[in-house]
Amino acid sequence: MPRYRLTIEYDGGPFVGWQRQTNGLSVQQVVEEALAQLSGEAVAAFAAGRTDAGVHALGQVAHCDMARDFPADTVRDALNFHMKPHPVAILSAEIAAPDFHARFSATMRRYVYRIANRRARPALDFGRKWWVPGALDAGAMHEAARHLVGKHDFTTFRASLCQAKSPVKTLDVLDVVRDGDDIAVHARARSFLHHQVRNMVGTLKLVGEGKWTPDDVKAALEAKDRARGGPTAPPEGLYLAEVGY
Amino acid sequence: MPRYRLTIEYDGGPFVGWQRQTNGLSVQQVVEEALAQLSGEAVAAFAAGRTDAGVHALGQVAHCDMARDFPADTVRDALNFHMKPHPVAILSAEIAAPDFHARFSATMRRYVYRIANRRARPALDFGRKWWVPGALDAGAMHEAARHLVGKHDFTTFRASLCQAKSPVKTLDVLDVVRDGDDIAVHARARSFLHHQVRNMVGTLKLVGEGKWTPDDVKAALEAKDRARGGPTAPPEGLYLAEVGY
Repeated sequence: MPRYRLTIEYDGGPFVGWQRQTNGLSVQQVVEEALAQLSGEAVAAFAAGRTDAGVHALGQVAHCDMARDFPADTVRDALNFHMKPHPVAILSAEIAAPDFHARFSATMRRYVYRIANRRARPALDFGRKWWVPGALDAGAMHEAARHLVGKHDFTTFRASLCQAKSPVKTLDVLDVVRDGDDIAVHARARSFLHHQVRNMVGTLKLVGEGKWTPDDVKAALEAKDRARGGPTAPPEGLYLAEVGY
Repeated sequence: MPRYRLTIEYDGGPFVGWQRQTNGLSVQQVVEEALAQLSGEAVAAFAAGRTDAGVHALGQVAHCDMARDFPADTVRDALNFHMKPHPVAILSAEIAAPDFHARFSATMRRYVYRIANRRARPALDFGRKWWVPGALDAGAMHEAARHLVGKHDFTTFRASLCQAKSPVKTLDVLDVVRDGDDIAVHARARSFLHHQVRNMVGTLKLVGEGKWTPDDVKAALEAKDRARGGPTAPPEGLYLAEVGY
C-alpha cells in the first residue's frame, strides 16, 4: 500500500477551501474524487495546510495511500486528467516513505501575500491580489514587520476559531517588498496560527497607510489580544507557496 | 476639445479583440461605452495595436477626444468605475498633444509571449499562458530567434489578412528566456505584421521540440512564404506589454 506525496497548485477562488465542507466544493473533494477515479476505491488526501476559502496554492503538499502500486508519474497525469476542468493541478507525485505525513512531517511553510497598490482595479489579476487603491508605504510596513519576526505569543494575530494548542510560534521571515505597483509580503515559519498571515498583513496595511506606526504593531503584539490587531486581509491575495520537510 | 492618452490593461479572454466586431464584445466597445457614460456623447477611442481575440494587454495605449475638459485623473477613475465588471483597467489617463495619435505616433511596440512548459495544465494561469506539456529547449529557441532579429521581409510570419503595405519590418528584440517551468518570448519593434509574434512563437516552438533546427528558421524566413512558417501560437499567451512614443 504505497504512500504518495503530491505537490498541488490551485486557484482558491471557486473553492470553500482545502477541507471538505457541506456548503460547497473543496479542493480536497476534487483531489479525492480524482483519486477514486484512478483507483476505483475511496482514497483520503491529507494536506500540509488547510487553506481557507479563496486562498490559493502554488505548492500545497498532500499525501495519500493507494491500494495499487501505480508509477508516480501515472498518478500525476491521471489525477490531472480526472480533475479537469477544475483549476487544480498536480505539479508532481512521488513515492513517499510509509511514515511521511504531509501535515505532521512538515518543518517549514512559506506563504506569499500579494497586494495590487494602484488606483485601477486589477484587470488581469482580479481575484489574485488584494486591491488597495490608496498609497501604501512598503518601507514602513517592512520596518513594522521587524517587530513580528522571532518567537512570540501571536494571540493578537490568531483567529478565534484557531485550534492550535499554543499561540507561541517562531516567525522566521516576514519581508515586505515593493515592485512597481505590486507589494509582496513573504512569510516563513515552521507553522502558523489560523489566519495569522492575513491578520498580520491586515495590520501591516494600517502602517502602510500611515494610520499606525511600526511601534503600534509592537504594542499590539505585546498586548496578546486579537481586539488590538488590525483587520483580516482578504483571502484572494494569499498563496501557500511552499512546504518544506 | 482636449485629447486624452489612455494606458490600458485587459484580460483578452472574454473579448473578440480590441476592435469592434459584430460577433461579440470588444475592448473598444467597453472603453467607448464608458467614455459615453462620462461625457454624455459618443466618443471614439483609437488604439496603438488592434489585439486579436484572446490577446491580453499590460499597456495598450489609446487616444480619444472629449468635448469637455475633464481633469485627467477624473477620466481614469470615471472610466474604471463605468467599465466594471469587465476585466479592463485604465492604468493612467493624461492630456495629450492635439496631434498625438495612439497608432500613428507610436515608435515602439513591445510584446511578451508566455509559455507554461510543464506536464500539468496551469491552474492559476489557465488562459494566461500557452500550455506546452512536452519539454522545450529554450536555448535552441533563443538561438533560432537570432535569425529573425533585424530588418527582413517577414512574409513567412505574416497572416493572410494582414493589411500592412509592406512585409518588411525591423525586429529589434526577440529573446527567449526560461525561468523554471515558464518560458517568456520578448519581442520589440517599431511595428509588427498581423499575427507576426504568434507566428514566430509557433515556429520557435518547433525548434524547442527539436523538430526544426535554428537554421530551418533562417531558411523559412528567406523563403518569404507563409506556408514555410510554423503554426500560429494561440492567443492566450500573448501580451501587448508597452507602446513607446
